[in-house]
Formats: sequence, structure tokens, C-alpha cells
Amino acid sequence: MDYQALVDDIVGDVHAYRGSGKVASYIPALAEADAHSFGLAIALADGSTYVAGEGDETFTIQSISYVFSLALALHHVKSALWNHVGREPAGSPVNSIIQLEIEKGKPRNPLTSSGALVVCDQLIGRRGREEACSELLQFLRERAGAGEIGIDETIAMSESRAGAFNRSLAHFIAAFGNLKNPPEEVLSLYYRQCSVAMSCRQLAQAALFLAFDGHDPVKGDVVCTPSRARRINALMLTSGHYDNSGDFAFRVGLPGKSAVSGAILAIVPRTGVVCVWSPGLNDAGTSLVGAVALERLVERTGWSIFV
Amino acid sequence: MDYQALVDDIVGDVHAYRGSGKVASYIPALAEADAHSFGLAIALADGSTYVAGEGDETFTIQSISYVFSLALALHHVKSALWNHVGREPAGSPVNSIIQLEIEKGKPRNPLTSSGALVVCDQLIGRRGREEACSELLQFLRERAGAGEIGIDETIAMSESRAGAFNRSLAHFIAAFGNLKNPPEEVLSLYYRQCSVAMSCRQLAQAALFLAFDGHDPVKGDVVCTPSRARRINALMLTSGHYDNSGDFAFRVGLPGKSAVSGAILAIVPRTGVVCVWSPGLNDAGTSLVGAVALERLVERTGWSIFV
Amino acid sequence: MDYQALVDDIVGDVHAYRGSGKVASYIPALAEADAHSFGLAIALADGSTYVAGEGDETFTIQSISYVFSLALALHHVKSALWNHVGREPAGSPVNSIIQLEIEKGKPRNPLTSSGALVVCDQLIGRRGREEACSELLQFLRERAGAGEIGIDETIAMSESRAGAFNRSLAHFIAAFGNLKNPPEEVLSLYYRQCSVAMSCRQLAQAALFLAFDGHDPVKGDVVCTPSRARRINALMLTSGHYDNSGDFAFRVGLPGKSAVSGAILAIVPRTGVVCVWSPGLNDAGTSLVGAVALERLVERTGWSIFV
Amino acid sequence: MDYQALVDDIVGDVHAYRGSGKVASYIPALAEADAHSFGLAIALADGSTYVAGEGDETFTIQSISYVFSLALALHHVKSALWNHVGREPAGSPVNSIIQLEIEKGKPRNPLTSSGALVVCDQLIGRRGREEACSELLQFLRERAGAGEIGIDETIAMSESRAGAFNRSLAHFIAAFGNLKNPPEEVLSLYYRQCSVAMSCRQLAQAALFLAFDGHDPVKGDVVCTPSRARRINALMLTSGHYDNSGDFAFRVGLPGKSAVSGAILAIVPRTGVVCVWSPGLNDAGTSLVGAVALERLVERTGWSIFV
Repeated sequence: MDYQALVDDIVGDVHAYRGSGKVASYIPALAEADAHSFGLAIALADGSTYVAGEGDETFTIQSISYVFSLALALHHVKSALWNHVGREPAGSPVNSIIQLEIEKGKPRNPLTSSGALVVCDQLIGRRGREEACSELLQFLRERAGAGEIGIDETIAMSESRAGAFNRSLAHFIAAFGNLKNPPEEVLSLYYRQCSVAMSCRQLAQAALFLAFDGHDPVKGDVVCTPSRARRINALMLTSGHYDNSGDFAFRVGLPGKSAVSGAILAIVPRTGVVCVWSPGLNDAGTSLVGAVALERLVERTGWSIFV
Repeated sequence: MDYQALVDDIVGDVHAYRGSGKVASYIPALAEADAHSFGLAIALADGSTYVAGEGDETFTIQSISYVFSLALALHHVKSALWNHVGREPAGSPVNSIIQLEIEKGKPRNPLTSSGALVVCDQLIGRRGREEACSELLQFLRERAGAGEIGIDETIAMSESRAGAFNRSLAHFIAAFGNLKNPPEEVLSLYYRQCSVAMSCRQLAQAALFLAFDGHDPVKGDVVCTPSRARRINALMLTSGHYDNSGDFAFRVGLPGKSAVSGAILAIVPRTGVVCVWSPGLNDAGTSLVGAVALERLVERTGWSIFV
Repeated sequence: MDYQALVDDIVGDVHAYRGSGKVASYIPALAEADAHSFGLAIALADGSTYVAGEGDETFTIQSISYVFSLALALHHVKSALWNHVGREPAGSPVNSIIQLEIEKGKPRNPLTSSGALVVCDQLIGRRGREEACSELLQFLRERAGAGEIGIDETIAMSESRAGAFNRSLAHFIAAFGNLKNPPEEVLSLYYRQCSVAMSCRQLAQAALFLAFDGHDPVKGDVVCTPSRARRINALMLTSGHYDNSGDFAFRVGLPGKSAVSGAILAIVPRTGVVCVWSPGLNDAGTSLVGAVALERLVERTGWSIFV
Repeated sequence: MDYQALVDDIVGDVHAYRGSGKVASYIPALAEADAHSFGLAIALADGSTYVAGEGDETFTIQSISYVFSLALALHHVKSALWNHVGREPAGSPVNSIIQLEIEKGKPRNPLTSSGALVVCDQLIGRRGREEACSELLQFLRERAGAGEIGIDETIAMSESRAGAFNRSLAHFIAAFGNLKNPPEEVLSLYYRQCSVAMSCRQLAQAALFLAFDGHDPVKGDVVCTPSRARRINALMLTSGHYDNSGDFAFRVGLPGKSAVSGAILAIVPRTGVVCVWSPGLNDAGTSLVGAVALERLVERTGWSIFV
């Protein structure tokens, strides 16, 4: 397959959609994003990457970070993690706390905000907030392989100040005894992981191990066991896109994770990783143009895991 | 691969688990099932089937019927179905009505009880309850290909009498104007589809079109478009097992549907279909031994869609 | 006090409001009511009644019936009733089922639809639906003292046919094992008690025992113990007006019960009973003009129990 | 009536119950309370007070403070308060956040924790946290008339540290834009008002204006309008005792407010005010012995507002 032609064709496919959707506006730094931006990158097993549009532009990775902190937490605390967070789909909007009350402070899965807070708490538990944060950054840099990766501290502070709902979640979980560390410590790590700035190309490279059973075919190292990689993919499939995970599976059919900055990471088992970015969001918080791009990509390649 | 050896090995794998779990007891006919029963069947593209244990024993297919009535409803009303039922995971226990109130009588997906009621209503809408029921039976017989398939009317009546919760769901949906037909008509079709008696072998054969992009490689006919087959698989992956769909994806990694009679149907895209049956259920209503069997099967074959 | 002048003045007070609010339209018989209708009656200890406007017009008493069936049920099963229904305010809209799920089929109080269904079930439990219905009619006739009182069977059937939500409630309660009789039996009694036709004057006379510690000062008989009368009043105060009971207590300050037909019964301890009727409802289902009338009445008389 | 004999008799009435119930233990200072403690005070219009048991012992007034800050907030912002908080019963346990989500951050009434936070926010809004706190203290001192009244700052800090759930509520309300001030400012005032130390005698005297239509018959001043006093009483009747307000109205029949320290304030319109204190709580958080004492008091005096 001519991959460069493929990614270029996708840019054409989404042309009419550019500018659609609604850019997240809860903090100024996100609100300034241009809804017409669109980037795309594919990373393959042989180390090649194919980039189109603004695929080398950086953005904050927001909740895509949950996937990487989950991998680290599973490495450190292993299946003990499941005492603190479940692995079922949330079945409710991203801004709902109801289920968390009914289930007594145990988040439904690690790819929701509340679940990510619990994962952060577990990461801190082992080594303190600063070291946990450094470790996560180090992990992302190693996996992405090239280029600078850092935290946009201005955005981190801005998010934290605006984060009344997440702050409420953290204290609510704490009220049920499901946080070991003070909520503000957990929130600090949480907002910093969300504010890591990366490009489509970097994210696609960083997640390659998930497409190859835990083994990174480019660097040659083993990041996790095959079963753990499959399980992270399963979680992304059932819960990676807020309350439109079912719709995403229905339309695209790949394990993935959406972020409020407009990025979507998608895993193609045994083939590679795709990352798209376009800041206009649909009603459920997933990139509108990004999802269309992935839909077209799967139509053109037949990469759905459901066939 | 020596498939007969494979299915026989699985019987060995689950030996220690037989009798585990809790047999459904809300009606006598189900309560009489023996928790030690275990059947397994694999149907492949070349028409071969491999059966072990009690894989030719019949049981009522219960909510596995939802998959087939969904395929029929999509055939008849196409995407208009999604005006009446969503495609997101439920995120709540099988016996919860809360989400249905919050979302004003629109079930979250067609693989829940409330969603299946809406699907039945759509099937009736076109042709009346009796004809809808005949059409479904005819569809199952054609797809399964061999052997008698009928409705266990005693169980249907017994289920209906015991079905206070489902009756409540039907009237609740009707109160929101989301049923076209009288609730008792809808419930009648619903309980009759749940009471169709089939074996593992029959179910595996009947679902082959879902593993091959809508085309039945044995009969040679096209049952639905590729995209519809993929979408039904996606729904099974995200929502096929009550409130343990996430866990099933996590452990097994195949699109599937559980039934309260202890059967589990699992689709292996491009390979075939597996059906297991063992009446002892886990806390969420999925066959305990059946899920273990599928976990072992995927370990032995690498059939997970997440790798 | 010149009571006839008082009731006539109230008619003047509400003049500008007549026609406000929204007439219930879920069945034709209610939808035909004229929002400009307004009736008022006061019954006092000496047997005198003061009537203004259409205070002798009859209407179906709807959920005001709950007060009388509650008194009968407490007479028959005494405090055992509280095993089946609570006595706390509902805290949710009249058409919500959420609390009933959270509290496992035990309605919050006997003055909600679900609670009234449980009360009806208890009444049937002793004597069968027909006899329970006759007893309730007999009780209302004895208490009202004069004039014909009967069931509008056409409305009862019409309500029953339209009653998808209440039917759902009944089956939901049954699913938790909190009904002894078949839901349709319970619903039949329920809809017939709601369809009893009475006038403001009749209702005011019928409830006199609640204003005088269980003793009817006109007929001279004892209907219930003082503590039971006080408790029924307490339930009306906290739960008598759907999800605007707090607002009614805040504005009017009398124990009362609203009905969807536009009637409101209000108890003035040690003084008498007031009944108003006007079919236009506020958003929560209480008569808009009726509540204004009672507000003015309390301003003119100082009858609030909170001073 | 010989009031001193009355209060002494009540001490005898509750003798067998002393030590029952469960002392609040979420902070050490409360956990140390002796469940056998019991105090009682009655304040009358002529300025006389009758005290029994430990009626002059001080305790933190906890959520009884809500009544006084509500009176102050209504004085300052008048009916604009009702844009920020409702006046319907909560209908859910004290530690539930579900309703707050369904109703988009508007607490159901000012006598719940979430409602009290909104009231505190309104009080701060006018004058800053420090001045709002001083004003409340000044108000309590004026009304109680004699003796020292101060804040137990150790308890305030201890409560604040333990207050994960209330902190979660404050941030949750803020997320809906229903707080003007930073949540930590609001929480600070909230915890300080809860930590005011007063005795039964002081509380009974402080609330006299509520029994006499807003006019304090002892000091001779007008605290609020008659209608406002009646409305505060109405709110106490429908919502003053967490999720057992209905039960309290049913058993006692007086407007009241319970506190987690074991105090209960009860208003007897046109007669006076009663305050009881005993730290052992029932399952819903109301003083077990205190409620029994009030039940006996009403039986002995006939003071129920429902007769």
C-alpha cells in the first residue's frame, strides 16, 4: 500500500468537514485552537511514519495520556489496580457523577476522568507526585523516540483552575476512601499529564507497542506482556471515547482514545498506529473531523477489527 | 489446526470449573438445568463444525436471540432503528431502569432487554406479531441449516408470567411514546424469541455471516452488507454481556452475546463462530464456565481481535 | 368571621388568575375541563358549609383519593403498612421511577402514585378488589354525608388505557415482591378510586375528621385515633403535592393534597376543611388558581399551622 | 402548666433510652461525646426558660446553624435566594449527590449541606467571609441574649480536614456556576458556622422569633416579617431532619432542625421553642433520644401543629 498517498487522500476526504464541530472552550488556551486544523500520522512496524496536514503540530494530549499512565500503573501495581477501578463502560455522559455514587467511589474504568484520577493516585503512591510525573514524561519520551516532549505548565495551571468538576470527583472518590494521596496532589499529576504537548507523529510512535502485543517493533523492546496490551486495547474499544465509545466502535471499529484537544489515537493490531488531530468536537467530546478521517481510513484499508 | 483436538482440549481445560456459578432460577424450567452441563461448537467457513461435550443439546437461546432480531430489524427499517434505540454501552446492571428514565425511554443499545423490546416492536410494526415471529423462526432455520428449530411455548409462557421487570420496562418505554404496538404484543414476541430452542452447533452455524462480512460462506448467500455485519459485531463487543461486557472484552477479546440460559455466542472475524453452553452464571449473568472456556480457546488460538 | 363573605372574597381574589395554568390532557375527559372553572367550599365543626363559585360541581377526585384509602388501610393493617411503603418526601418529579429502584420497590410515601398502588394492594389483600372498592365508596359516602357519590367508570377505563407509566410502576413494584395481588387487579382499584366523582363541598365534609383529631364533629363518630389523624396530616404536609409539596407548605402552610383534576384539599386543624377546584395546573401538577386561592385564604384568616 | 415539672418528667421519660444510638465519629471531637448525655430547654414568650439535664452544656450546633444563616441570607438577598436554592424536600440520604446533578447544581433546599453551602456563598457575597462570619456570630449572640458564644476553631479545622464529601459538593456546585466565591472560602464559613458552640438554653432563646411570627417577645424586636418566619418553619417541617424529616413530622409534628452533634431545635408556634441534646444518633443522623424526648413532650402537651 502506498501509505503516503493514503494519508494524503484522507486529507482530501475530510476537506469538506474542516471547521465543523465545536472547539473546547473551558480554558482560553484550548479555545484559541483553530477548528480548521487537521493533522494525521501513521506509524508502522518498520519504523516508517506517514504524516499529512498538521501531523507534526503539537497539542496537549489531554485524556490520551490516560492510556499511557494506565500502562505504567499496570506495570507497577499489576492487577491490584482493579481493586480501585473497574473495567466496564461508563454508560453515562463525561460530566456525570451518579454512577460513582451508586458504585461507592469506584470508577467504572481507567479511561474516564474519575478512573484516571485513581490511576494517578496509584502512580503517586509508589514514588511521590514529582517522581511519578517525571517517570510518565520519561516513558512518553522513550516511546515517542524523537523530538522534545514536555508539559505545557501554563495549560496545566489553567486547567486546574477551571477544573471544578474534576476537583469535585477527586474529593468524592476520597470521601469513599479510594484515594491514598491528598486530592490536590492527585489533581496536580492529573492536570500535568493532560498538559503534555505532543504531535500526531509522536503519539502514533509512542503507542506502537499496543499494536504489536506489547513489543515495540521499532525500538525492539518489550513494554508489556501480550495479554496486557490486548487488555488495554479492549478498554480503549469499550471505553475510549466518553459516551460515544459505542458509536466509535460502530463506525470505525478500532481501539482508540479521544482527547478534548481534538486528537484521537487508534490502534490497528498487527499493523500500526494512527493518530489524527482536529480541534472541533462532536456533542460527546470526540473530534468530529478526526472521527470522519478514521472512518474513511478504515473504509480505504479494511482495518476494522470486526472483520 | 486440529479443531477437534482443540474443542476436546477445551473440555479438559474447564473440567475443574464444572458446576461453578449459579443457575438462573426465576422460572422452574431454567432452574432445573444442570450446572455441570457443558457444550461447545465451532463452525468454520468450509462448512465443517467441531463439537464437544453437550454441544448438540438444545437450550433456550434467550438474549442471544437479540442478535438475530437486530439483524432482521436493520434489514427492514435500516438506520431508522437508531431513532428508537441507541448504540452506547448501558453502564448499569441488567435490572436497572434508571438510564431509561434519564434518556426518556430510548434504550441505550439493542442488546439490552429494553433495547430488544424496541427491536421487537419494530419487527411487529411491519407485519404483526405472528408474522414477525414466523419470520424470525424462518430466519434462524435458514441460517442454522439443519435440524428442527422451534419455540418452547411452555417456557415462553412461564417467562412471561415471571416477567414483572420486563413488563415494567415495556410499559415504561410505552409511556415515553417509543413503542408503536401494545406492550403485551411486544412482550409476546420478545418472550417467544427468547424461548427458541437451539444447540451450540446450530447457533454457531446460524451466526457464520457475522464472521464473514455479512456473507455466509457455507450457504453462499449474502445476509447483510459488510458494514452492517461489522456494526453488529461492534455492538456485541461493547454491549453483549450485560454489565460485564467490558470484562468479557478484557478477558476474551471477541464480539459475543451471553444468554441467561448459560450460552455464549462468539464471533471470530474471518475465521468462524464459537458457541459454548454451561448453565452456571457469574454475578453479572454470563456463563461462568462458558467464559473460562472462551478465555482458554483464545489463549490456545490467538483469536483475540485485539492483536 | 363571616365565612360566606370570606369565600365570596376569595372568588374575587382569584378573578385575574382564572384560566391560568394547563389543564391535564392525558385523557380526553380531563382535557375537556374548562380552565376558567373555580369552586371553593369550607366545612366547619358545626356542620355548616360555605360554598362559592362552582363548589357543588363534581370532578374526579384523582389522587385526593389516596388520603381516604390511606386512612382505610391504616385502619385495616395498622403499622404493618409501613413495611411496604415509607413516609419520607419523594424528592423527585411525579413521573420518576429512579428512587423506587434505589429503594428496591418500596415507595417513599403513600401519597405518591407508587405508594397509592401499594396502599390499594393492601386494601385488596383483605377482601378482594370488588369489595375493597365498595368499602372505599361506602366510606366516602358516609363521610361526605349527603348526595350521590359514584365512580365515573368511563374515566376509570380511559385512565387505565392511558396509564402506561402507572402500569410500569405497578409491575416494577411487583418485580421487587412488594405487591400481593396481580398488578392489573391493583391498577383496577387504583383507577376506580381516582375516578370517584365528588364536589368541593363533599370533599370538605368528608375530610372533617382530619381537622378534629380523628373525630367527626358533625356526625359525632370517631373515624380514627388522634395520633393517626395527626400523622395523615403530617404526610399531607410533607408529601401532598407531588414535587411542589415544599413550595405549598412554604406558601400556604396547611396539610393538603392536590389532584390532577385541579382539586386541592386542605386541612385547618381545630377549625375545618377547605376544598378548592380549578383545572389549570402549574408545572408540578397542582392547581395554579387553587393554590393562589388557598394562599389568599390563609392571608385573610391566619390559618397557617406555622404560626 | 408547670413547665419545670414538665422538663423534669421528660428526663424521666427518656431514662431507659439513654446511651442508645450511635455517636458521630467522623472527627475525634464529636466521637468523644458521651451517648448518655441528655439536655433539654424550653424558652417561652415571657422570657422564662426551663432547663433539665445537661441543658446548659455546650455543643457545636452543626447544621442547626443552617436555620440562622438562612434567616440572615433572606434578610440580605430576599427572594433572590430562591434562584440559587430550591425549597423542596431532598428525598435522598444526606450523603447523596445524585439529585444535585439531575437538577444542575441547584440544591433542593437550604437545610441540606449543599443548600447551606449556597446560603453561605450568598452571605459572603455581600461582605467577605470574615465579616459574614462575624455577622452570624453577632446575630446568634443578640438572639441568645446571654452568655458567651464562640466558634470552636479546633473543631472547625478538624471538620474541614475530614470534609471530603462537603468539599466535593462545593466544587460540584461551583462546576454548575452556582457559587460566586471560591469553594474554599465558602467551606471555611460553612465549617465555622457549624462549629459555633451553644447550649440547649441558648439555642431555644435564639430561635424564639420563629415561634412568634418574626417578633422576639422577650427582646421586643422584630427579626423578620411574619411570612418569612412561617416559611422558615415550613422548610424545617419538610426538610429539617435529613432523610427522616417525614418521620419526624409523623412522630413529633413540630417544625425542627436536627444536628449531627445530637441537638434538635423545635419550634412551637405561638408558644415557644424547645431544644434537646443527646449525642446518640439514629440511622438517618437525628438524635435518637432527642426525638423520643420530643415525642413524649408533644404527647404530654398536645403541641403538635397537626391538631
